[in-house]
Amino acid sequence: MASDLSHSQAPQAETVFDRTRKLFHMPEGVIYLDGNSLGPMPLAATDALQRAAKDEWAGMLIRGWNDADWIGLPERVAARIAPLIGADPASVMVGDTTSVNLFKVLSAALAARPGRKVILSDSGNFPTDLYIAQGLIGALGQGHELRTVSHAEMEAAVDAAGQDLAVLMLTHTDYRTGELYDMAAMTARAQGLGALTVWDLAHSAGALPVELDACNADFAIGCGYKYLNGGPGAPAFVYIAPRLQESVAPALSGWMGHAAPFAFEHDYRPSAGVGRMRVGTPPILALSALEAALEAWEGVSIHEVRAKSIALCELFIELVEARCPELELVTPREAERRGSQVSFRFHEGYAAMQALIARGVIGDFRAPDVMRFGFTPLYIGEAEVRGAVDILGEIMDKRLWDNEIYRKKAKVT
Amino acid sequence: MASDLSHSQAPQAETVFDRTRKLFHMPEGVIYLDGNSLGPMPLAATDALQRAAKDEWAGMLIRGWNDADWIGLPERVAARIAPLIGADPASVMVGDTTSVNLFKVLSAALAARPGRKVILSDSGNFPTDLYIAQGLIGALGQGHELRTVSHAEMEAAVDAAGQDLAVLMLTHTDYRTGELYDMAAMTARAQGLGALTVWDLAHSAGALPVELDACNADFAIGCGYKYLNGGPGAPAFVYIAPRLQESVAPALSGWMGHAAPFAFEHDYRPSAGVGRMRVGTPPILALSALEAALEAWEGVSIHEVRAKSIALCELFIELVEARCPELELVTPREAERRGSQVSFRFHEGYAAMQALIARGVIGDFRAPDVMRFGFTPLYIGEAEVRGAVDILGEIMDKRLWDNEIYRKKAKVT
Repeated sequence: MASDLSHSQAPQAETVFDRTRKLFHMPEGVIYLDGNSLGPMPLAATDALQRAAKDEWAGMLIRGWNDADWIGLPERVAARIAPLIGADPASVMVGDTTSVNLFKVLSAALAARPGRKVILSDSGNFPTDLYIAQGLIGALGQGHELRTVSHAEMEAAVDAAGQDLAVLMLTHTDYRTGELYDMAAMTARAQGLGALTVWDLAHSAGALPVELDACNADFAIGCGYKYLNGGPGAPAFVYIAPRLQESVAPALSGWMGHAAPFAFEHDYRPSAGVGRMRVGTPPILALSALEAALEAWEGVSIHEVRAKSIALCELFIELVEARCPELELVTPREAERRGSQVSFRFHEGYAAMQALIARGVIGDFRAPDVMRFGFTPLYIGEAEVRGAVDILGEIMDKRLWDNEIYRKKAKVT
Repeated sequence: MASDLSHSQAPQAETVFDRTRKLFHMPEGVIYLDGNSLGPMPLAATDALQRAAKDEWAGMLIRGWNDADWIGLPERVAARIAPLIGADPASVMVGDTTSVNLFKVLSAALAARPGRKVILSDSGNFPTDLYIAQGLIGALGQGHELRTVSHAEMEAAVDAAGQDLAVLMLTHTDYRTGELYDMAAMTARAQGLGALTVWDLAHSAGALPVELDACNADFAIGCGYKYLNGGPGAPAFVYIAPRLQESVAPALSGWMGHAAPFAFEHDYRPSAGVGRMRVGTPPILALSALEAALEAWEGVSIHEVRAKSIALCELFIELVEARCPELELVTPREAERRGSQVSFRFHEGYAAMQALIARGVIGDFRAPDVMRFGFTPLYIGEAEVRGAVDILGEIMDKRLWDNEIYRKKAKVT
């Protein structure tokens, strides 16, 4: 009888995403399609911040380094990120920003290919990647060249660079269009010429399966505050292939990357493995929030996330194209060629996005004319996709974007 | 009558430090003499973390960059630090770690002195400073040399380096001994040879008056989590003299240091002034805690802090020397030659410090044999000094350090 009763009252089976969406705070009246820019706050993150501040910092003071094992926190967070990017935990380190981590691996890669002068990248790469390469080249003063071409020209450009190619530096998922590079194929192509690869996973980690080890990638970096939901400006991560770790001589050689940081030796000796990618004192408060945010992935398969993300993206494309013929799809139509975002071009894209945001649908805008929408199954479902398109359709039908209020540029766009 | 009453009931005038100590959380039974390693938690910091997480991140999502002016947070925090180090707010930037900031200014300084090959520093400098110089030299591969000598030999070594001297890189307050360099004199000496100066203020900022502008310093960096109480691994700061700012070409050239970060241009153009020392996305949670911690300095004169710090240090030295003849003073006896810490040498210093910590008196140990005590008037007074010496005296009298429990090394010492 008991079993009959429980059967008759059983709710519809809860999906993994029904469960995960309860882990995030979402303001009322908001449809959030910008988790690819800044993930929302996991409820566990604010608890973790309080614990780190009140129990650890306030209560333990300096003893927190041992008693709360702050010193091991970067490794613990790295171990949670590693499975999402197809890496052994011992190949990943967390700390600093994405830009600083790019500097670390790019300088290591150039040093490992003396005599080769070309860093090849995508002309549409996220600007900080290009800037970091430019700054490094300028500082080295060794005649390196940052060469950029479009995605379509990349294979030919790799081949054309030939033995001059030192590093192929690509962002796996294009931040504007969502287009993916084939990591395995491009890595093999560059390595076939004796070059090294640096992969920026800012828009990939947590968005879709990444297989760094299986693709034989050399170096990678990525972001903690997008699909990993670690909070604004969360610490970033860095990956070095096991076969390269012991030969890397860090340009940013700080005490936390030393083999014996508390021996206070006069000369730098790199820590074994990827530990040498640590530099200064780790940011405990921010790492605590990121660590807690990553708990949302417990019991979640990145392959399930990918399947749901594709379904959401396809639904969005289908509905927008039916409802808003003014918008031109920028993202590749084939699911296997894009990440977890959909972008449309619209000549008044900035104003249209502001009109959307004013109505609670938050996506973002990327110059010159791209409206960008991220789909994040951990906390976004079909209802949000349909709701967003209803509002977008109304804005387009009634030309609600045609309003000076929405053209006024904010500090951060 | 009312005035008579209020007069008769008036408590003894509250000092500025009676007021500031209430701003910090201190666990019961602890005498904290390690604020020079990690400042205690200001009560305002935990409130700020909650506000940044719940009101801003959770509530505003991506809109926090504009609506909570996250994008301006590094400058706002810099403006609070600037008066403590004798700098114009427009010459200071906050973000990244002390080590990464040292890399920024040291690379800039070397680039500004082409042809000169010597970085001169103190052989007892904090190791990360030496390591960062070593890593930069290795990465540049331009034949630079890191030359280190003792404090006593420094003046002669500057003169001996002569026209080869590119950068004099000194930590203002020695982390082990507390000994101060004369910033004005050493800066003038190096500049007289055409060299540049880099000052590490890790143990100076918030501990004693620093006059970067008045001393004509070139570059400086410093720490957010010691005397500034920003929390474990808090963001660090960087200073560039106004006359140098526009000529610095950053090696770490990230998008946040670009003149127009949201124009997404292909090529790096540095922001005006010290803004080019920004690199990646700023760590909003950690910056919020640091900003709140700096509120403790409102209405507090760093000169008052210095006067009280000298009084506390002198009392500590006098009492320890009277009570514990086994301990040898390492710190300079003259107040004007030391920072805000007192260090004693003891052959079993590690175990003695562990015995102290077990009894609630928290200082720290620095290899090979230095027991270090920091005095921070914002939250430490005479009662704590006397209480600490009572316990230290008992440990020495009864040889309580002579116990295997206290010899066992922790991960972080």
